Amino acid sequence: MATVTIPTSVPSPAEDCELLRKAFAGWGTNEDLIIQILAHRNSAQRKLIRQTYADLFEEDILKELDKELSNDFERVVLLWTMDPAERDAFLANEATKRLSTSNYVLMEIACTRSSHDLFMARQAYHARYKRSVEEDVSYHTTGDFRKLLVPLLSSFRYEGEEVNMTVAKSEAKILHEKILEKAYNHEELIRILSTRSKAQLNATLNYYNNEFGNVINKDLKADPKDEYLTLLRATVKCLTCPEKYYEKVLRSAINKLGTDEWALTRVVATRAEVDMQRIMEEFHRRNSVPLDIAISGDTSGDYKKMLLALIGHGNN
Amino acid sequence: MATVTIPTSVPSPAEDCELLRKAFAGWGTNEDLIIQILAHRNSAQRKLIRQTYADLFEEDILKELDKELSNDFERVVLLWTMDPAERDAFLANEATKRLSTSNYVLMEIACTRSSHDLFMARQAYHARYKRSVEEDVSYHTTGDFRKLLVPLLSSFRYEGEEVNMTVAKSEAKILHEKILEKAYNHEELIRILSTRSKAQLNATLNYYNNEFGNVINKDLKADPKDEYLTLLRATVKCLTCPEKYYEKVLRSAINKLGTDEWALTRVVATRAEVDMQRIMEEFHRRNSVPLDIAISGDTSGDYKKMLLALIGHGNN
Repeated sequence: MATVTIPTSVPSPAEDCELLRKAFAGWGTNEDLIIQILAHRNSAQRKLIRQTYADLFEEDILKELDKELSNDFERVVLLWTMDPAERDAFLANEATKRLSTSNYVLMEIACTRSSHDLFMARQAYHARYKRSVEEDVSYHTTGDFRKLLVPLLSSFRYEGEEVNMTVAKSEAKILHEKILEKAYNHEELIRILSTRSKAQLNATLNYYNNEFGNVINKDLKADPKDEYLTLLRATVKCLTCPEKYYEKVLRSAINKLGTDEWALTRVVATRAEVDMQRIMEEFHRRNSVPLDIAISGDTSGDYKKMLLALIGHGNN
Repeated sequence: MATVTIPTSVPSPAEDCELLRKAFAGWGTNEDLIIQILAHRNSAQRKLIRQTYADLFEEDILKELDKELSNDFERVVLLWTMDPAERDAFLANEATKRLSTSNYVLMEIACTRSSHDLFMARQAYHARYKRSVEEDVSYHTTGDFRKLLVPLLSSFRYEGEEVNMTVAKSEAKILHEKILEKAYNHEELIRILSTRSKAQLNATLNYYNNEFGNVINKDLKADPKDEYLTLLRATVKCLTCPEKYYEKVLRSAINKLGTDEWALTRVVATRAEVDMQRIMEEFHRRNSVPLDIAISGDTSGDYKKMLLALIGHGNN
């Protein structure tokens, strides 16, 4: 389901590093060469390139890229080149320092990564920031947002497919009750969303839909403008069908007056190696236009080239 | 700081397994031999013995021990033989099914293990129970106990020695404020205790002591019989000086009318390879009697032999 394409014969990391070094050399920078190499290596290969580059030239390639590139192109190349766990740590840390829209980034990381990958991101956060992610997030958030985000980020969900139907029924009822009482921040509701396995949650929400006649997100739309409720609906989406969540993020980013490059870059850089194919299918279905066309119309230059390479444009 | 003693020349796992197999054979069981072997192997060696036993005899040695042994002796041998992460998962699961005293077990596991070991226990919990520990604990607890225990168990604290004195001051004030308001379950108080690194917490609590004239646990003693407050004080103790906490658990277990073998076994089996030496020093200082004498007077038979072997009795 990834969209990144790797050439059938991949040069050695040392060869890639020599070429990248050349791309950085002199006055100009050879952006095409950077894209040609980095956008077509998977995370294990990029990791090797980074290690080899440090061995050969005693420089962190991220610092080189930071020096040579700028703006949106710089951001997408940097995010992409990072190790996925380090990237999540970086995005989470950045999110603790931004406005409330960044709550989505934190929720995304907590809910769309596998339990193992989320834990790797927490480890990378320690290494890079000398604090824990839950420490920073609980320090920087308040009220309902804190109540929801901290348990989501601290969770280590079971990932098996086992489902307990008795639990599904009883917890669907709890959810329904709390929603009827408008107790959207109730600890039971948050407990269910933040601790149950995705398979179990799915069973619970299916029962909810069957028994109470609406998908839960419809019932969570009492006040469509309420920020917490909007985040709660996004949480449910990320836990049950992440590709739909991401499709919507892309749709809003592209349809904005002035593209939201921050969101567009994040989604492409974090999903290209995961489920971008599915996200693109959703996007096409929902917008009647393929994602690569939409991106082409909204971006330009090296930034556009890099995004298109990552979503596999022009591969077939 | 461990008390377990390993012979200078350790037999091969296969030799140990052959002897253990003999110890189980026939009508009687050779308890002395079991103690002689298992109580004098470290966790890596016990793990190898367990694997080798399974390879040689197609039996889980834990099942064999379960068949052959009984009562308190069985429990201490089983707990000791388990891998530490598996043992923590087992104790945590057991705790979710018992009465409120088991809140201490959950808190202990959350607060006295290293971040890495706590995470290993969460992984072992997945493997063994097909659920997450935070899932079971949040399901089985309510009110203030849940509010405290779930974040403690979900935390992945930073373990570096870095301390931020500005944070220490401001959070000591928050703690003091909340205690003055008797808001012992306030989310800020729980945030601080459950997310800050142990080094940072120590700095915060030292500042608290200097600035407000009492150690925090004195101020948390408003109602000495309140169960939640008692757990809160124990939490602070586990986070700052675990050996004192464990000394007290041992003291209460031994001084009880009828020893509390459940607690005694747990402390010895979980700490013998960690900090039992320090706990014994504290015990001797606080009770004017060495722990081995106290245990000898209160227990008997193979159970007593096993406990004494684990705390290094008769080694010098």
